[in-house]
Amino acid sequence: MAGRIYPTPQDAEAAFYEALERSDLEAMMSVWAEDEEDIVCVHPSGARLTGQEQVRESWRQIFARAPAMRVSITQQVTLSAAMLSVHSVHESFSLPDDPRAQGLVVATNVYVRTAAGWRMIVHHASPAPAGSEAPAVPAAGQAPKTLH
Amino acid sequence: MAGRIYPTPQDAEAAFYEALERSDLEAMMSVWAEDEEDIVCVHPSGARLTGQEQVRESWRQIFARAPAMRVSITQQVTLSAAMLSVHSVHESFSLPDDPRAQGLVVATNVYVRTAAGWRMIVHHASPAPAGSEAPAVPAAGQAPKTLH
Repeated sequence: MAGRIYPTPQDAEAAFYEALERSDLEAMMSVWAEDEEDIVCVHPSGARLTGQEQVRESWRQIFARAPAMRVSITQQVTLSAAMLSVHSVHESFSLPDDPRAQGLVVATNVYVRTAAGWRMIVHHASPAPAGSEAPAVPAAGQAPKTLH
Repeated sequence: MAGRIYPTPQDAEAAFYEALERSDLEAMMSVWAEDEEDIVCVHPSGARLTGQEQVRESWRQIFARAPAMRVSITQQVTLSAAMLSVHSVHESFSLPDDPRAQGLVVATNVYVRTAAGWRMIVHHASPAPAGSEAPAVPAAGQAPKTLH
């Protein structure tokens, strides 16, 4: 299963949702990149998870309690380009007048290289659960990495 | 402002958060890709927005009611590769035994081309507000597009 080859991104996406529907952990992990690179997974209203170990454990827990579920995908927008850069960040919001008023948001930002330099094409933000800022995540705080 | 050139993705990201902190709509939109390509923006717990018009209007509304706010970015993970594919989808969940039990999730999925075919590196999912599945979004339901 780990050796499965997906010839196109669409094949990988189809396998992802098939594994989700079947609660099949090995099939799910066969979709994710295997190398040392960071992988990033944010479940709905969940903290950002990075790396094989955290991502696998999260799916294991989800599948352990998941009922039989159907998932259908609609309104797909696909963006491919020769030069894309994907950033995952924690956004810490605060009010200058009230240091106690704080909020944490996890965001996925995607930039594309255009004739006019780099521009944003995706900003996906969601609330991070309380405690996400704490360095409980082993991979947190590490230096940015580049794939390949 | 629309002609600003960001030599690196980091420059574009810095400009994005600077515009956010300053509630500067023109600076914000100077960060986004300008061409016909789809751009995708999901605000925390918000619906997926696509295209210049929807994205600009959302920031205009946010900035109109935003208090002076500080934003700091931490725990950045950067993923760059020669061949990346970014998909934005709506995930419709349902229980086979109870058709009324339904849920809608908006997800950003990023795939990378590896020696072993295409693999996922990012899955960012967040709950979509009620009504997001309705075709109220002009760009919804369109065919997948490829940049460049």
